[in-house]
Amino acid sequence: MDRQVPAVAGGPQFRQMTIVGVGLIGGSLALAAKGAGVVGSVIGVTRSAASREVALARGLVDRTTDNLAAGVAGADLVVLAVPVHEIVRLLPDVARHVGPNCLVTDVGSVKGPILMAGDAAYPDGRFVAGHPIAGKEQSGAAAARADLYRGANWILTPSARTRPEALGRVGALCGAAGANVLHMDAAWHDEVFATVSHLPHLVAFALMDTVLATERGVERLRFSAGGLRDFTRVAGSDPDMWRDIFLMNRGPMLKALAEYQQALERLAAAIQDGDGEALTDRLLRARSAREELLHRS
Amino acid sequence: MDRQVPAVAGGPQFRQMTIVGVGLIGGSLALAAKGAGVVGSVIGVTRSAASREVALARGLVDRTTDNLAAGVAGADLVVLAVPVHEIVRLLPDVARHVGPNCLVTDVGSVKGPILMAGDAAYPDGRFVAGHPIAGKEQSGAAAARADLYRGANWILTPSARTRPEALGRVGALCGAAGANVLHMDAAWHDEVFATVSHLPHLVAFALMDTVLATERGVERLRFSAGGLRDFTRVAGSDPDMWRDIFLMNRGPMLKALAEYQQALERLAAAIQDGDGEALTDRLLRARSAREELLHRS
Repeated sequence: MDRQVPAVAGGPQFRQMTIVGVGLIGGSLALAAKGAGVVGSVIGVTRSAASREVALARGLVDRTTDNLAAGVAGADLVVLAVPVHEIVRLLPDVARHVGPNCLVTDVGSVKGPILMAGDAAYPDGRFVAGHPIAGKEQSGAAAARADLYRGANWILTPSARTRPEALGRVGALCGAAGANVLHMDAAWHDEVFATVSHLPHLVAFALMDTVLATERGVERLRFSAGGLRDFTRVAGSDPDMWRDIFLMNRGPMLKALAEYQQALERLAAAIQDGDGEALTDRLLRARSAREELLHRS
Repeated sequence: MDRQVPAVAGGPQFRQMTIVGVGLIGGSLALAAKGAGVVGSVIGVTRSAASREVALARGLVDRTTDNLAAGVAGADLVVLAVPVHEIVRLLPDVARHVGPNCLVTDVGSVKGPILMAGDAAYPDGRFVAGHPIAGKEQSGAAAARADLYRGANWILTPSARTRPEALGRVGALCGAAGANVLHMDAAWHDEVFATVSHLPHLVAFALMDTVLATERGVERLRFSAGGLRDFTRVAGSDPDMWRDIFLMNRGPMLKALAEYQQALERLAAAIQDGDGEALTDRLLRARSAREELLHRS
């Protein structure tokens, strides 16, 4: 069961926060945490010279480096804000270069496999798996902003191994950044986000692919109005990032996709049979889901 | 082949235009045509007392009636702005009550079956099948506005039977309302709109249905961010209207749906097999379709 966690007030929670990956997500956390006065210095680690330059110029971080070992040395919090496969790869690397009291957290959209890798790399429970639910239309250090997390949900998925004190301190940081901190089971998180985020992205990618693959597809696109255009933002998301998410959240994705394919089959059968009543039933269900969504937000 | 048709300037093209169905589409055409000075009087026919009241109060029409025969009597243009099945049903009814020189047009989203019914009801070629591509987020007479068609495409799908003079006069009216008038083959129209409009709506309905039908669906909805929300506008469209469109455009819909299901299958197989390269290929294709769409608009 997920529950909301009250934010904890106080002085700097961390003397040195190292953020690996200074893009929209990492850079915005740096800005928000510095603004709230809950971190001392912030070090940004990224291989991209352009990102390092922007991060320094915009004051997102106090210092940058392309060297992971140098960047995490002396940190009391390391935030992995890179694509999901990178997070899994970096977890044990970071463990070799940080002190025994350094906490480690991440921002990946899939939690089960990351939590497993984190618990393995930090068997004393210093890893706190996290997922901020924040807009991703733009990306990169240039798009980072201090209010990205204001009012957003930031989900933490502790395991039985996660130390309560580590969970509390990371949660306090997220809360100080303006987020509503929620605790959730990692497997349930991955099922939920397969349904409400990963499947919709796959559906949009598949739709755009279908239009282009069809006979005289480019010519057809010219006539698209609302219907198709609403899908374009989603289908414009970073393909590499989504490939990694789909692959890492394989089980829940395939389950959600199978349920979706069944829903399509039911609709196709109703159209095939000219069954207006069945069709109306399904469309009304869909609309009620939408209303549920709008009322809850 | 579709081709763009230049608008024709001039005085009132029609002394009396009768609009059957005074909603967003019909009401906006009435406003635009009166504003452009290309119609004399406008009569609104609708069974809804509320719509008649709003249409009169907002000055969309000069007179209203709930009686089809009385409303179309004396008209030199009748516009059928009702759901697609209603259009097919009303075409022969209208034919019994109008004079031999009255032109008839419609605004339905499916053109093949309507064109066939129109040619049967008006064997001398006075029926001009049309489809304005205009926003439909709100509906009803209250949402009508004079600029709805400004810059929008208005597709006319003449048959071999359609009289060129009828086609020209109806096109001139659409042009006067601010639309770009295009001529297109009806069967190709239905294929194109199955792909760029009807399928995206079905996909959105199916997605919302899937989320709600899944275990603890309502609870999941609470976590939806961008991904799912982009689909909600589409899934909030009028279920009855879309049921009729799906059923009337059955052949092209089932074809587009089959192609879409194959695209999903390919993505599911790539996820199942952990085939990152295949997944990237598909996602890049989707993104290129999106870019094509954005550059063309």
